[in-house]
Amino acid sequence: MDIYQEALETHKKLKGKIQIGLRAIPDSRKKLSLFYTPGVGGVARYTGLHPKQMRDYTWTNNLVAVISDGSSVLGLGNIGPYGAMPVMEGKALLFKHFANIDAVPLVLDVHNTGEIISAIKAIAPSFGAINLEDIAAPQCFEIEERLKDELDIPIMHDDQHGTAVVVLGGLISAAGLRSQKLSEAKVVIAGAGAAGVATALLLQHYGVNNILVVDSQGIIGPKRRDLNDSKKVLLGLNQSRINGSLKDALQEADIFIGVSRGGLLKPTMIKSMAKKPIIFAMANPEPEILPKAAKEAGAYIVATGRSDFPNQINNALAFPGIFRGALDNRVKKITDTHKIAAAQAIASLVPRPSPDEIIPDIFNKNLVQVVAKSIKN
Amino acid sequence: MDIYQEALETHKKLKGKIQIGLRAIPDSRKKLSLFYTPGVGGVARYTGLHPKQMRDYTWTNNLVAVISDGSSVLGLGNIGPYGAMPVMEGKALLFKHFANIDAVPLVLDVHNTGEIISAIKAIAPSFGAINLEDIAAPQCFEIEERLKDELDIPIMHDDQHGTAVVVLGGLISAAGLRSQKLSEAKVVIAGAGAAGVATALLLQHYGVNNILVVDSQGIIGPKRRDLNDSKKVLLGLNQSRINGSLKDALQEADIFIGVSRGGLLKPTMIKSMAKKPIIFAMANPEPEILPKAAKEAGAYIVATGRSDFPNQINNALAFPGIFRGALDNRVKKITDTHKIAAAQAIASLVPRPSPDEIIPDIFNKNLVQVVAKSIKN
Repeated sequence: MDIYQEALETHKKLKGKIQIGLRAIPDSRKKLSLFYTPGVGGVARYTGLHPKQMRDYTWTNNLVAVISDGSSVLGLGNIGPYGAMPVMEGKALLFKHFANIDAVPLVLDVHNTGEIISAIKAIAPSFGAINLEDIAAPQCFEIEERLKDELDIPIMHDDQHGTAVVVLGGLISAAGLRSQKLSEAKVVIAGAGAAGVATALLLQHYGVNNILVVDSQGIIGPKRRDLNDSKKVLLGLNQSRINGSLKDALQEADIFIGVSRGGLLKPTMIKSMAKKPIIFAMANPEPEILPKAAKEAGAYIVATGRSDFPNQINNALAFPGIFRGALDNRVKKITDTHKIAAAQAIASLVPRPSPDEIIPDIFNKNLVQVVAKSIKN
Repeated sequence: MDIYQEALETHKKLKGKIQIGLRAIPDSRKKLSLFYTPGVGGVARYTGLHPKQMRDYTWTNNLVAVISDGSSVLGLGNIGPYGAMPVMEGKALLFKHFANIDAVPLVLDVHNTGEIISAIKAIAPSFGAINLEDIAAPQCFEIEERLKDELDIPIMHDDQHGTAVVVLGGLISAAGLRSQKLSEAKVVIAGAGAAGVATALLLQHYGVNNILVVDSQGIIGPKRRDLNDSKKVLLGLNQSRINGSLKDALQEADIFIGVSRGGLLKPTMIKSMAKKPIIFAMANPEPEILPKAAKEAGAYIVATGRSDFPNQINNALAFPGIFRGALDNRVKKITDTHKIAAAQAIASLVPRPSPDEIIPDIFNKNLVQVVAKSIKN
């Protein structure tokens, strides 16, 4: 039985991975009158008059909404809200288990940018923070940007920034091993969806100057006439103004970051890269190249998105700590500075990295706390 | 210290009455891969293809959204979403404690009928049922009706129907004690908001023919030119086609139902009613008349909304069981037939009623189960 079938049967037996738990037990008339009517009327009157203090009196101080429209779920594409729900519930499970954050999975039955923004704004007072999840590019960029502008709680699209933070954390360790400043590395990113765009922009903010992004049509370069707004921003990163294919891009590159599709990266391409190349092949479930083939072609460090190979680049290394810190420190916006600090925190948890250990384990006991400390006002 | 102040301090200490609990613990790589990626991908693919089966694989089979826009919270009026949250969270606490239902409190930062409907429809796939709460009349009527038409999960505005069900349950017991068929009683309802309208319509559906509804402008009668759509429906119940004041309405009435404001009902009005009048004085926190004064004026049975007097008419007698039954029996719409069955179930729990015990206790161990059985397809 494969893992998908086993998971299906496990879920059918469980009928739910999370539930509501009680922090107060209304088992007497007195307690009922304190937790509910009439007493709660005193609380309602107070929080109605002092909206900013509401979270001190309700579960919202520890509460994240995990929200998807189901338009880009795992590698399955647009499978809609009913397809997204098991994944969002799983993410809520991770929030609680790893960071003791209460998270509510919400799936949306609206699909255009304006409707998604309106629905999320409408329910926003119910939450202390919002984790956007599995929303397709390029709509995800406008949705997140506008929500960040229009709401005063932390909002993060994890497919973008969770990935970008963990990639940067891994690269900080990897570049150190390779004795090259990351700012001087030539980086090629394959994939210009949510994760590719956010990773490129975070690397730029970190100081990397030479970044080429390649999508299914080739290098995002000056000859391209098919670029949407988010890809036009990536064009600005292409300082050598070159055009061409992935193969062209990889000549003498130091680092390959794949957030694209299985099997994309060929051994000959790795051979054309600079010495001791770093390969992050994160397509799921099949990486752009398998670690064994990459190593045989000369890769110095290989990371994937999978737990069955060394160096798993897993968003779960970042999001629990980022939201833990954002909630605890009452951070209103998660900025690039926060993301870089979180990446450095992740890297700091591997004090003596090796090519097969550039990133901490998801079960590292200090992980959430160390990342959380990096997210402060 | 009054109950409001005590509740405020209790809430500040608790910082949340509910939390997320785990039904699965992702404490190994294997479990992570089953509950989350990659295994959950198999579940997502399946539920995406079979949306109606999604609830068998997620917590939604036991999940109710408790939703308010904060436009009519307890007796506090329009105090907005931040005011509503402590009350909605309290309701979620009651759902779990009394009926083992997982409930998520949601407050909305939109305020017109269309926006409220759009927001709720957008998030509806996330839930197994929806409890609308503390939404002002008359918007509450259109909001509930349209959501019932447009969604295929059970939806109930508890301020309307929870109250109506418990009132009917109490009246069934009370009328029995008084040896009068409820269908032959003359009923006067003071208050034409959410609870008044729903109670009038449920009594009509139960077979009560003589119902006068009185609002702040007097009897809803043929001379009124100021009636909105919901009040025009109430005009149809006024079979004697009379106009006038509450005092006029109460002449020879058998039953007074108050969902209006404290102190409205005067002893002289009770004296003008039929013999052995039944008084449900449910305004909160101050009833339309206090039980002692009502009894002195000749009332045979007095009920209030308060826990410190006999016969508390409390929505919590109805909603946990109604939603328990609706979820367990996969009921798509809660109908008038369900509501009458629930009222009869509540009355059945007091096999030998007396004037001071017409309704079961909120802590009655059989309550939720007996009410739940009445809600079936």
